[in-house]
Amino acid sequence: MMFGAPPSVTRLIETLSELPGIGPKTASRLTFFLLRGETDLPLRLADALRELKERTRFCSVCFNITEADPCPICSDPARDRSSICVVEEPLDVLAIERTEQFRGLYHVLHGALSPMEGIFAENLRVAELLQRVQSGTVTEVILATNPTGEGDYTAAYLLSKLRPMVARLTRLGRGLPVGGDLEYADQVTLANALDGRQDL
Amino acid sequence: MMFGAPPSVTRLIETLSELPGIGPKTASRLTFFLLRGETDLPLRLADALRELKERTRFCSVCFNITEADPCPICSDPARDRSSICVVEEPLDVLAIERTEQFRGLYHVLHGALSPMEGIFAENLRVAELLQRVQSGTVTEVILATNPTGEGDYTAAYLLSKLRPMVARLTRLGRGLPVGGDLEYADQVTLANALDGRQDL
Repeated sequence: MMFGAPPSVTRLIETLSELPGIGPKTASRLTFFLLRGETDLPLRLADALRELKERTRFCSVCFNITEADPCPICSDPARDRSSICVVEEPLDVLAIERTEQFRGLYHVLHGALSPMEGIFAENLRVAELLQRVQSGTVTEVILATNPTGEGDYTAAYLLSKLRPMVARLTRLGRGLPVGGDLEYADQVTLANALDGRQDL
Repeated sequence: MMFGAPPSVTRLIETLSELPGIGPKTASRLTFFLLRGETDLPLRLADALRELKERTRFCSVCFNITEADPCPICSDPARDRSSICVVEEPLDVLAIERTEQFRGLYHVLHGALSPMEGIFAENLRVAELLQRVQSGTVTEVILATNPTGEGDYTAAYLLSKLRPMVARLTRLGRGLPVGGDLEYADQVTLANALDGRQDL
């Protein structure tokens, strides 16, 4: 009989391998790290996973991840209700909040349109966005989808739908990332940077 | 007020970041992946972690990870009790078992000697190894520690302790790894390969 790892070890390795970017080798390494320690890390991790599942939901207004509904941003009276920033994922909200430059509300689509992969408007929170804009006092919508083919396609689609409803539609500026090296910038980024050049 | 992630999200990100090789960025990515899915993956992962902690222990004979004590290898009557292969970690047992070339028993040290890092013989399962060899009918001990400075030092230490007790002491062969390219082999590996050259 050849000996393998005990069933509970194999099971954790297999389950960890379902996570993106974690292959069987990394999963083994993590599992044996968790076995080695005398600490309570495996149990703390188990509790954190269970709590994540039990406590979080989507905000019924903006569809961001939240523990309270509506989320802290949607229910904050200090936020500017006339401006909505549309993003693909909850992580994008965190990234924009970190800049401390935006005082409006968000709308999380939960993906981008991708007809090739079978992702259409009805698979995203598009109808909810249109309804929010229609029924509210929104004067600006920032289409902050990713600067990718699918993100641009999604922004173009939303632009056509929102054009009759809202005064100002914008997208995020494009150009060279801070700390980047002009020499290594790809040609589309450089073309965008030229196109969006600013007077001094 | 700047908005951050909900507490349960932050907590999982922080707990995942305690794992080796997982920084805050990867931990965020994994957490939001777990949030996005409609699946039961977070709960299955939580259960697997809890089971790992509850079901596994060290074999009281060889100190490998096991659910039953003694472990399946130590209690397998078909294994050759005259030969013990000494390794640093439980993962090493799996690696050697995968070769299907070794039919003896194992002894897991749970580390390597490293006086610089304060790891001495009393911090490893060394005394238990010496007792096993002394009280048993062991005729060969394979010192299969890692081919590193600390692994070699550990093997040398064990060699001096075991020399009077056991007929045959061996270590794993050294040379070029299969699929490796001679041109890119480091000089110590190449020196070992020359030193261990075999007649054809």
